[in-house]
Amino acid sequence: MRLTEDRLIRLFRQRFDRGAADLVRGMGDDAAVIHPRNAAEDWVITTDMLLEDVDFRRSWLTPVQLGHKSLAVNLSDIAAMGARPRFYTVALAVPPDITESWVLRFYDGISGLADAHHATLIGGDLSRSGGGIEICITAIGEALQGNLVYRSGGKAGDEIFVTGVLGRAAAGLELLLAGRARRPNGSRRAALAAQRTPTPRCDAGLWLARSGLVGAMMDLSDGLSVDLPRLCSASGTGAEVRIWDLPVFPESRSWNCDPLRLALHGGEDFELLFSVRAEHVATLLASYPTTFPPITAIGTLTAAAGVLRRERPTARPLRLSAEGFDHFRP
Amino acid sequence: MRLTEDRLIRLFRQRFDRGAADLVRGMGDDAAVIHPRNAAEDWVITTDMLLEDVDFRRSWLTPVQLGHKSLAVNLSDIAAMGARPRFYTVALAVPPDITESWVLRFYDGISGLADAHHATLIGGDLSRSGGGIEICITAIGEALQGNLVYRSGGKAGDEIFVTGVLGRAAAGLELLLAGRARRPNGSRRAALAAQRTPTPRCDAGLWLARSGLVGAMMDLSDGLSVDLPRLCSASGTGAEVRIWDLPVFPESRSWNCDPLRLALHGGEDFELLFSVRAEHVATLLASYPTTFPPITAIGTLTAAAGVLRRERPTARPLRLSAEGFDHFRP
Repeated sequence: MRLTEDRLIRLFRQRFDRGAADLVRGMGDDAAVIHPRNAAEDWVITTDMLLEDVDFRRSWLTPVQLGHKSLAVNLSDIAAMGARPRFYTVALAVPPDITESWVLRFYDGISGLADAHHATLIGGDLSRSGGGIEICITAIGEALQGNLVYRSGGKAGDEIFVTGVLGRAAAGLELLLAGRARRPNGSRRAALAAQRTPTPRCDAGLWLARSGLVGAMMDLSDGLSVDLPRLCSASGTGAEVRIWDLPVFPESRSWNCDPLRLALHGGEDFELLFSVRAEHVATLLASYPTTFPPITAIGTLTAAAGVLRRERPTARPLRLSAEGFDHFRP
Repeated sequence: MRLTEDRLIRLFRQRFDRGAADLVRGMGDDAAVIHPRNAAEDWVITTDMLLEDVDFRRSWLTPVQLGHKSLAVNLSDIAAMGARPRFYTVALAVPPDITESWVLRFYDGISGLADAHHATLIGGDLSRSGGGIEICITAIGEALQGNLVYRSGGKAGDEIFVTGVLGRAAAGLELLLAGRARRPNGSRRAALAAQRTPTPRCDAGLWLARSGLVGAMMDLSDGLSVDLPRLCSASGTGAEVRIWDLPVFPESRSWNCDPLRLALHGGEDFELLFSVRAEHVATLLASYPTTFPPITAIGTLTAAAGVLRRERPTARPLRLSAEGFDHFRP
């Protein structure tokens, strides 16, 4: 039997997901939610691991960029709940050839991003690694009670939105895999930056949660074709994606990528995926701050299960197959 | 320059340890302490990483034992603060030869210990590893405000106590290293159990914190000769250890160990190390529950810096050199 992340998470939820005092939401969302007794705010908690030669190659990033990315992955989960980053811990294991200076620059990258979001390092662990570099960050955020947005809040008929551009980080990955990351021009530089130093959508996530206009929300870490079914499954809906409306990254064509394939199946964009009731769409579009990353409506949630893609308004919808990144995919 | 854990933690504290709203205690103790606005309780947070072939060998433990130990290390930190375990996250990376059944048994080990302490799994991450098994657990506990005990609470003249037996887990490690762990008799079995499935001293830690009799407290993870100087440094004291009073594990002599060396320098006992004002010692000894692991007075905190050992009441004190386990020690 294939060991897939989604399958194991289902097994764990069956075994472990029981209530506890102060626990608002356990496993299965971008972050868990705790409401400490009498507290003014809800607290959200998320953990992510980044491993050398699984999630990154050492030659692809400077230590500063790796530090930035390691924290960004976690802050993106906090953003996807509509919460504000507050604290984080860093567990780091490094092989013997990593110098103290490397470690300090790695923490420079972390603190650069953390400072921008007023997040404070409160602890961690430091270890020698027998293999590659291993990073595990736990981030803690807070939100006014009732302001959080879950994957499960979508309803049939909701419009599906994303922030930013899809497939840009994957286009940067293609450059790195092809060894074509030297002296990048403008669009290559943008793709590499999206891959190396993703920007967690904290301001947008917080604004969207506070607006009260958003049904479901999550971040796009594994690719739309993997993540959208997760949102649908949590919300008890299906979805139909309007292929022609996807905010792809067309510049990647110049390095032989298929922008649509990367937008559907490429991971690590760390954009937000969210749903909005049809009657709130106009209000959202009128009030969403223009200084934030743009938002694009890409489809609708449907009552029928299954995630479909429609190539043109007149075309028959087809099944959108999941080809995003799964750590346990062969 | 040698990359030592203590040196890096000092560097990080200089760079990162700044105040933040709701933050009671940042880095440098067994766990960080947050006081959510208006909350009834303080919350403590700790992260630890366990790596194959650095912290354990796969052949030494069953997956159930490894799960138990991974969580125990974290619960021990919660116990050392005088807090109660509540929630935890597990990030796990496994190489391709690890089966789904292995992963499920690993979680059996975790949940066995978690259930005993009413701790709830709230999230995590699951990844393929290119190297060995990698585990990173973050545990969250709570304590009534003002009930927490820090490493910094010691004062010159305090009596130093430990729970349980010292050097027993290290004696078990010696058996494993020597390949002599098959068909163990009573004392070998006890040593192996201490090494493989340590018991975090949660009940004792909570009781001691609530008693109001304890000055400083921490857990013994790296060995007395490494951990006691950390407590002294945080408290601004020195210490003198009465060698003849140490609760060693004499049975290890039968497999050629030096029980005193293991008690001073062996890691992973996960016993509690704490200080008690001289005038409270009698009260402590009279009221400490007999059903808890025994406590032993092993020395005193001193005004003069430096950690000393005295072999006999009439002997001149000598410097206690740190030979405990440091991940970056060559």
